[in-house]
Amino acid sequence: MKQENIGLYYKNVTEEIIGDEGISQKQFEGLAELSKPVIRQINQQRQAGETAYRDLPYKKETIKEIKELAGSLKKTCENFVVLGIGGSALGNIALQTALNPYMYNLNDSHRQTPRLFVFDNVDPMQFASFLGWVGSRLDKTVFNVISKSGQTAETASQFLIIRKMLLDKFGPDGLRKHIIATTDAKAGTLRKIADGEKLPTLAVPDGVGGRFSVLSAVGLLSAAVCGIDIEQLLAGAADMDKKVSDDDFYKNPAAINAAINFHFYNRGKRLSVMMPYSYALKDLADWYRQLWAESLGKAKTIAGNDVHIGPTPIKAIGATDQHSQVQLYREGPNDKLFTFLQVENFGDALKIGQSPDNAPELQYLAQKDMAELLNCEKMATEYALLKDKRPCLTVIFPEISAYTVGQFIYLYEVTTSIAGALFNINAYDQPAVELGKHATFALMGKEGNFTNSLSYGQFAGQIRELTELDKHYLV
Amino acid sequence: MKQENIGLYYKNVTEEIIGDEGISQKQFEGLAELSKPVIRQINQQRQAGETAYRDLPYKKETIKEIKELAGSLKKTCENFVVLGIGGSALGNIALQTALNPYMYNLNDSHRQTPRLFVFDNVDPMQFASFLGWVGSRLDKTVFNVISKSGQTAETASQFLIIRKMLLDKFGPDGLRKHIIATTDAKAGTLRKIADGEKLPTLAVPDGVGGRFSVLSAVGLLSAAVCGIDIEQLLAGAADMDKKVSDDDFYKNPAAINAAINFHFYNRGKRLSVMMPYSYALKDLADWYRQLWAESLGKAKTIAGNDVHIGPTPIKAIGATDQHSQVQLYREGPNDKLFTFLQVENFGDALKIGQSPDNAPELQYLAQKDMAELLNCEKMATEYALLKDKRPCLTVIFPEISAYTVGQFIYLYEVTTSIAGALFNINAYDQPAVELGKHATFALMGKEGNFTNSLSYGQFAGQIRELTELDKHYLV
Repeated sequence: MKQENIGLYYKNVTEEIIGDEGISQKQFEGLAELSKPVIRQINQQRQAGETAYRDLPYKKETIKEIKELAGSLKKTCENFVVLGIGGSALGNIALQTALNPYMYNLNDSHRQTPRLFVFDNVDPMQFASFLGWVGSRLDKTVFNVISKSGQTAETASQFLIIRKMLLDKFGPDGLRKHIIATTDAKAGTLRKIADGEKLPTLAVPDGVGGRFSVLSAVGLLSAAVCGIDIEQLLAGAADMDKKVSDDDFYKNPAAINAAINFHFYNRGKRLSVMMPYSYALKDLADWYRQLWAESLGKAKTIAGNDVHIGPTPIKAIGATDQHSQVQLYREGPNDKLFTFLQVENFGDALKIGQSPDNAPELQYLAQKDMAELLNCEKMATEYALLKDKRPCLTVIFPEISAYTVGQFIYLYEVTTSIAGALFNINAYDQPAVELGKHATFALMGKEGNFTNSLSYGQFAGQIRELTELDKHYLV
Repeated sequence: MKQENIGLYYKNVTEEIIGDEGISQKQFEGLAELSKPVIRQINQQRQAGETAYRDLPYKKETIKEIKELAGSLKKTCENFVVLGIGGSALGNIALQTALNPYMYNLNDSHRQTPRLFVFDNVDPMQFASFLGWVGSRLDKTVFNVISKSGQTAETASQFLIIRKMLLDKFGPDGLRKHIIATTDAKAGTLRKIADGEKLPTLAVPDGVGGRFSVLSAVGLLSAAVCGIDIEQLLAGAADMDKKVSDDDFYKNPAAINAAINFHFYNRGKRLSVMMPYSYALKDLADWYRQLWAESLGKAKTIAGNDVHIGPTPIKAIGATDQHSQVQLYREGPNDKLFTFLQVENFGDALKIGQSPDNAPELQYLAQKDMAELLNCEKMATEYALLKDKRPCLTVIFPEISAYTVGQFIYLYEVTTSIAGALFNINAYDQPAVELGKHATFALMGKEGNFTNSLSYGQFAGQIRELTELDKHYLV
């Protein structure tokens, strides 16, 4: 079957369409020049094995292992529960929303594969509500705990609650039957626990950061368990790999995308709105939100100079947010770059019925397809934004499939790498997350030292002193 | 029962905590001076009946009507489906997420009231997935179509699909039994249809814009149907009304909240992040997102001068987004004001289990409550942000209840009114939404004229010309 490809459409960021707010031909040529050595650098880093995420579409052994593990659950598993946070959850959620039906968890008669739940928080009300439901279904439930280190406080605490529940109900054997650990291949807390308790495991690949890990075992197991064609997903990513490796800026959608984002950031458009006109694609915008913010939000350049840079990603959804955000988007500060996701073919037709006789003003909708309405709304909103000189990109999906979603993921991962190089920052670390993690350890009473000269206990004291409630400021 | 009140905590926006990025004592006094006449003006507008939303907590007759209607559904309704968009959906969703359990729709044995679905989009895949499920359950399903005018294309098209489905299955009688219309009391397309087809109706109150309508029949019917105590919700709002009407700036949480937001916007912090540390409160942040963006994002001052103003609201969720956005929030541009929502008492305890013997590094979590972890994470994240001089507000919820949620809603509505007055713009209109609406009409082939000199057909031609795909820009 010939696969259709997603495309990046960028005419509506140009001077031709939005005048002096847009990119001129000369500026675009400048971006191409600027990007040339960057594309070369990105390709060299990939060859040198410095960006391991680039090779994920080609790991045949991993796919085999995942499919076998998923297959082994078929008979008994009715509920599959991911425990993870950040990069260990956002990709899983995005794939599920994109590629399984809206009513998947609720529609027992249509679903052939287990329900999916992803818990990426430590909210006691939310988790207790779930435990109250799953308690009587534990025998048909499998938990996939995902953490590279196993030390992530949120995932660890979920895991310890589930572990106790399973131990109480089934004994040590129950752990092996009901928990799969996705973690470091060799070291770390969760690896140690999994080995000690003989849990089935999958490996988080080395050198792949959480936010670039969706196409590894991290994101693929839950997808495979829920019937998503992970081989097509990776085929899409691999096909996009060819395009985004192209030395020619003008043929490389990741390079063009990164350069356009870079251009507008430097001209005061620091907000990057991703607005899918499709419910199914909405959580890809959330996945992108982490990828973009954690990769590009940095205090220092690679050379170590202060820069405090980073576009703020915002997710919106069409047509819904036309009735919520578009007033601001059109009339507020011209500080945003918009990226629409548009779907050409939604599959099933959904015809709108006749209007009642006494309301002929609705008859223009009758016998039209809902998909036509949704895509007209996108065109209408874009038109209105262009009238106010707001730059708009569109990623066009010929259809929503594992193949096109794989393409999209890979396109945005490489876009992020290139954008990081243009911004001259390290797109792969997240140094600012550490302080909060250690502050949590301290406040939760962990023993040991935060720094050489400061114990966690002393650190907790400092935090409490700064954040202690002062009723004078409470109203 | 004595009710506990929510509180706004604002020490962590002050110079005392974040140095020169914070508000000094003198600046705060300046904001108080500036706000005095504004509070007076807001109170006068309320007295003059110009802000009808202010009176919603006191409409006893409406409550009675809603409760009777909700009660009449008790025996037969198992699925309650809201068809609406923007202000006719976001409040409904927010109340449901806040006040019913996470597993509400799925947990049939715990739920005493109907499942709730809210459709606020025209996505054919999403809607078809739902129709495939509900088709065999139509006899136990009631649809609440919400639209002031009935001309909103999204809601109208959903309605026409459902109407045909019900007519085909039950005939005209079926409409009366399975559709409730919430619409203008006297005029408009949906009123006409409802009268013609003898549908039960509730009124969208006059002079209340969609985004201020959650405490009217718009938001309250679905809440009441799903067992939410709407009287407590309104009691909370009414109690907050006293506080936010206080002439004394220093005692008025809406005035302080608005002034702080105004202050930071004018100093380059144009992004306003609302970050609940609670899954239940997450959709209140989405409701706020509409309230804030549509009310404050304006091109013109009240006098008609160009201003292009408006903070961009962003929703985040703790602890989840610590692993997604906090890297950017700490190290990126210092362009954000943070508002945390914090819950003191989550109700049920959820104890974390012992760590395995070979992982003593997790033992610090054992026997702690998950709520303690979540609140420590909030404190830790706030501490880390304060270290980087990022201003932080917190709304403290003693608990999540209809009463405190009602307080919160009213606090933010009045905050928005006051902020609008400080920004010197009209917080109650949304002129920029019109162009997109008419462009949709044009593209969908509606007959008639867009302006005196331009038919919808001609207008559609103009839109297509501007937005027509030019393959030169597709990569």
